[in-house]
Amino acid sequence: MVQTSNFTMQEGDVPSLEANQALVRVKFIAFEPAMRGWLDDVKSYVPPVQIGDVMRASGVGEVIASKNEKYAIGEYVSGMFGWQEYAVIKETSDKIGAPLKVPPAVPPQLMLSALGGTGVTAYLGMLNIGKPGKGDTVLITGAAGATGSIAGQIAKLKGAEKVIGVAGGKTKCDWLLDECGYDVAIDYKSERVRRRLREECPTGVNVFFDNVGGTLLDDGLLNMARYGRIVICGGISAYNETEVPPGPKYYMQLVARHLTMEGFLLYDYTDQIDEARSQLSAWIQEGKIRHREDIQHGFEQIPQTFLRLFEGKNVGKQLLELEH
Amino acid sequence: MVQTSNFTMQEGDVPSLEANQALVRVKFIAFEPAMRGWLDDVKSYVPPVQIGDVMRASGVGEVIASKNEKYAIGEYVSGMFGWQEYAVIKETSDKIGAPLKVPPAVPPQLMLSALGGTGVTAYLGMLNIGKPGKGDTVLITGAAGATGSIAGQIAKLKGAEKVIGVAGGKTKCDWLLDECGYDVAIDYKSERVRRRLREECPTGVNVFFDNVGGTLLDDGLLNMARYGRIVICGGISAYNETEVPPGPKYYMQLVARHLTMEGFLLYDYTDQIDEARSQLSAWIQEGKIRHREDIQHGFEQIPQTFLRLFEGKNVGKQLLELEH
Repeated sequence: MVQTSNFTMQEGDVPSLEANQALVRVKFIAFEPAMRGWLDDVKSYVPPVQIGDVMRASGVGEVIASKNEKYAIGEYVSGMFGWQEYAVIKETSDKIGAPLKVPPAVPPQLMLSALGGTGVTAYLGMLNIGKPGKGDTVLITGAAGATGSIAGQIAKLKGAEKVIGVAGGKTKCDWLLDECGYDVAIDYKSERVRRRLREECPTGVNVFFDNVGGTLLDDGLLNMARYGRIVICGGISAYNETEVPPGPKYYMQLVARHLTMEGFLLYDYTDQIDEARSQLSAWIQEGKIRHREDIQHGFEQIPQTFLRLFEGKNVGKQLLELEH
Repeated sequence: MVQTSNFTMQEGDVPSLEANQALVRVKFIAFEPAMRGWLDDVKSYVPPVQIGDVMRASGVGEVIASKNEKYAIGEYVSGMFGWQEYAVIKETSDKIGAPLKVPPAVPPQLMLSALGGTGVTAYLGMLNIGKPGKGDTVLITGAAGATGSIAGQIAKLKGAEKVIGVAGGKTKCDWLLDECGYDVAIDYKSERVRRRLREECPTGVNVFFDNVGGTLLDDGLLNMARYGRIVICGGISAYNETEVPPGPKYYMQLVARHLTMEGFLLYDYTDQIDEARSQLSAWIQEGKIRHREDIQHGFEQIPQTFLRLFEGKNVGKQLLELEH
């Protein structure tokens, strides 16, 4: 398990700018379970964060100095600003790293939650792989997380008949039922998920959007409908294990029920991000998608806030606000 | 592990026919790993074989009596005749169970091997899910089995650049290299499969056709190319376990490399079986597909022959010939 002692706080001067750079005063920092993987020294879709480096993270902030005509002082931008109070925007050819301007009418923190990587992941993962349709039963694990909560609402907007979320604790389940339009919420801490799914889905699950892995993935596998689709979006149950835990023991259900299981990684869909953001933005304005941010405060609380993800404490998007 | 003592031999009268029935003297019986699953008392794609029932199996034989004008005496037919010397063809609406006539020019045992369920499974699984294309690297486990050996040859015929088979022992590996046109054969009994794959596939595996599961599935998962496709056709390594073994621990590679994993079950593709059989038949006649049958003899050897599949003894299709 990652610990607060894995991080140290260092003070330094506010950086001075070179040509074509801009300086951002960071206002909100975002936290995602996937960041845990960046701490492992293994080859993956992004290089690992090295010991001594600033922890990689997305954030949003205000441009307070600029030697680049693209960024005007006073504008808000989101980008990979890391765990720091001040970040320098450098010219980059990397589409992932390129900062985005926050449109004037949009609250900055929304660019890190429903309109950020997590909301966009929910949208693109659900629509490209899950493909929910009219009458479908849709299952989501980690349903009260930033991605899960939006994924279920998108399925509902696309005609799903029954959206089932698995989350930990009554607060999260109530939020799914009362605010997010979920039809069923299963509390994995107090209920037997596998049996409850069997009761709730007599004809099986057509789309399973998994953020958790572990036994919950098996619970879903054992309750799929024929020709069901499984979106592997995350596997938070395993992110802090030192040994890779056993995989889904009931994967042979893929054969017995003719299932498809496919991994989703946002980086593979960069050409669809603008479309996703604009549709999500419209739905939010129309009140069709509810979202929630869990906002902690203070620079020194950053490591503690990161841990909240793995302690199951956050409801909705985990953010931290810096008071300058 | 299934044992010969799980079966008993019973003698009885040759059945007499009712209206619309025909009597078949069985000549060859076919054995498939999937039959092991039919012995487990669990819900699956076919009902389990009950204790005391005749063991379900496909076979081929000669019509020796007929009260059905569809079947003439002297014709050869293939069907689900079970482990018995004489079988009665009843009228059935079940497409799976319906007997097929063996075309006059075709050796009857071919209807159980390359033109039977195993050959057709290789064809339809490889083309519908694996979709090998020009330049692809294709990996097959259980490669010297009846399905695996044909699956690799089909990939090659469809333009795959490098076809890699994993099999147990030098005899099987030599057969893959010398006769079946495989480019690489890895002996899992004497080689480190994961490392060898890394050496042989520097750019990764595009299509992985898995008949085995277990650690070989993980070996493949760790060596996939981006956007690779995994066909789950079987999982013979687990068929005799009393507890469901752990699943593929590296399934999160689906996310990291954007992979798709899909189960193949022949019963889902019944509308394509005729096409598959006719293409396979043409390729065999043109000498483009090599196949091999491992033929045991004698009714009392049936249980022992079934076990050969799980002992890794068969090269190519496991059959048994009855001498009447």
